[in-house]
Amino acid sequence: MKTRQWLLNDHPRGRPLKDSDFRLVETEIADEPAPGRALAQVLWLGFDPAQKGWMENVADYVAPMALGDVMRGSGIVRVVKSNTPRLKEGALYAGLTGWTEWLETDGAGFEPVHPDLPPTAMLSVLGTTGLTAWCGLFKLGEPRPGDTVVVSGAAGATGSTVGQLAKVAGARAIGIAGGPEKCRWLVEEAGYDAAIDYKAEPVRARLKALCPGGIDVVFDNVGGAILNEMLGEIATGARVVICGGISRYETGTMPAGPENYFNLVFRRATMRGFIVLDWASEFPEIRRRLAGLVQDGRLAFRIDEQQGFEQAPATLMRLFSGANRGKQVLKLAD
Amino acid sequence: MKTRQWLLNDHPRGRPLKDSDFRLVETEIADEPAPGRALAQVLWLGFDPAQKGWMENVADYVAPMALGDVMRGSGIVRVVKSNTPRLKEGALYAGLTGWTEWLETDGAGFEPVHPDLPPTAMLSVLGTTGLTAWCGLFKLGEPRPGDTVVVSGAAGATGSTVGQLAKVAGARAIGIAGGPEKCRWLVEEAGYDAAIDYKAEPVRARLKALCPGGIDVVFDNVGGAILNEMLGEIATGARVVICGGISRYETGTMPAGPENYFNLVFRRATMRGFIVLDWASEFPEIRRRLAGLVQDGRLAFRIDEQQGFEQAPATLMRLFSGANRGKQVLKLAD
Repeated sequence: MKTRQWLLNDHPRGRPLKDSDFRLVETEIADEPAPGRALAQVLWLGFDPAQKGWMENVADYVAPMALGDVMRGSGIVRVVKSNTPRLKEGALYAGLTGWTEWLETDGAGFEPVHPDLPPTAMLSVLGTTGLTAWCGLFKLGEPRPGDTVVVSGAAGATGSTVGQLAKVAGARAIGIAGGPEKCRWLVEEAGYDAAIDYKAEPVRARLKALCPGGIDVVFDNVGGAILNEMLGEIATGARVVICGGISRYETGTMPAGPENYFNLVFRRATMRGFIVLDWASEFPEIRRRLAGLVQDGRLAFRIDEQQGFEQAPATLMRLFSGANRGKQVLKLAD
Repeated sequence: MKTRQWLLNDHPRGRPLKDSDFRLVETEIADEPAPGRALAQVLWLGFDPAQKGWMENVADYVAPMALGDVMRGSGIVRVVKSNTPRLKEGALYAGLTGWTEWLETDGAGFEPVHPDLPPTAMLSVLGTTGLTAWCGLFKLGEPRPGDTVVVSGAAGATGSTVGQLAKVAGARAIGIAGGPEKCRWLVEEAGYDAAIDYKAEPVRARLKALCPGGIDVVFDNVGGAILNEMLGEIATGARVVICGGISRYETGTMPAGPENYFNLVFRRATMRGFIVLDWASEFPEIRRRLAGLVQDGRLAFRIDEQQGFEQAPATLMRLFSGANRGKQVLKLAD
């Protein structure tokens, strides 16, 4: 049988993504999986800004991507034929599928979807997104009740989870996002105490007003000027969690480094980065807790679902233009 | 009797120091100290880049300095007349004297000089300089045997102490300094394993060559481009200690922030600032250990001694031009 695949066609280094970074091909795949393997159909793909870093090969915590490789990415599959006890026919699993419609896999790294939540939860709140929010916030940010947590890129899939987790932990959550619709959603749906629209409001002045005691935990998904403004308002002993840097991808040039880094001295503060995979051994337990919060109605998530395999590159680009509303996924099949 | 004093005459914000930032006055001081107080003569003043931050009032971890205040600074005094059991007549003490030739004090914050080391040791290796090196390195940097520690501003009073302490702890020490004389001194006298002359060598390439496994501990006294280069070469799990930022003072404009901060993510690394006064309760014990290392010949220090009270402003400026060789002090009297 045949499957379509998106291949890496160029390394988008130091510039935005473009259509010619990807190449659509059709390739042959066996109807009958080899012993110990299964044939699976991809139902959804999930998208993350880190994928651009993988394409650039700057992110050396993962294996390099060569030109001609199938685009790396997560997805949800339904197992159609299985020759391995790891994967049950008819069942749905989440894992690193790559950008393909069909794949043969031994099931390594694939997890069953949650029985009581929509399958796409495994690409968002129970996937790398939710795990990243949990680990970054609780292992590095360490919010205490009454702390003020400020999240940039707050309306993104990770950011909106961070704010809600901060609230669960008894902290105040302030989100920074672009545009009134995102800011309204943060406060009305995602439980943020306040939101700052960086496209319409002076970020520094709003931070001063909203965080009179300073920021105890910064959770940064953005970098650039917004990180710098947040660093300017940290409280003594603040924890600055560097999770992402989407501003690094927006333009052809690297954004300036944060001049206000020296406030780490005056505030005896800590700035840390992390790779969520370092805590992989804890993922089952963290996923169990995240699912519990969703089921208790304490953790909302929204999915931005686009349609059609041929839209994969355009769907990834939505992340960098800020077009997505919630976790970006692409539906390939029912 | 009369004493001369240097007063703060202008806040040197966002520009280098100049002569008119200081004003020399003569003022009256009682021959006989009040009950509970002592009259002391200042023998040496000690100088530190942080003093410019105090003058600017940007360093809010200390009380603000107003125009007309006596310049804040450390010194060594000899007690001439004492009406307090805290201070013995004829004995030498170190403390915050300010820029004055004589002062009356109740002795709060004054410590006796070490009986077996030169008095100026209390302004350098046993003073804030040595305590800063110890606390920054061991409380934040946490070097382990075999780690590679890179120090910027390595020929400065703090930097040269950091490298030697790293060696004592079993780590490799690489120093970055300006000019062949400083670099030679680092390797030949201060026990550094290697030195990089940033004025003559490509820092990034030399770091790559000297630290093939990456930098485990960055101890930064400089900021700007050198901090950025060091961040580009950190090892997984690195600790980046922000101690000072002398490049912030060199020019009228703030140096760019470190673009490579995002390497904290790829390297799961930590960048922290600190204020050494937070560990004041531990100073006696740390000072005891530092003195032991000096007496064992494991910790060298050098003093750059200028002469004459009227030279105080010019002596402070030596720190920012890189003219000083070792801890900058000024001798006022025998």
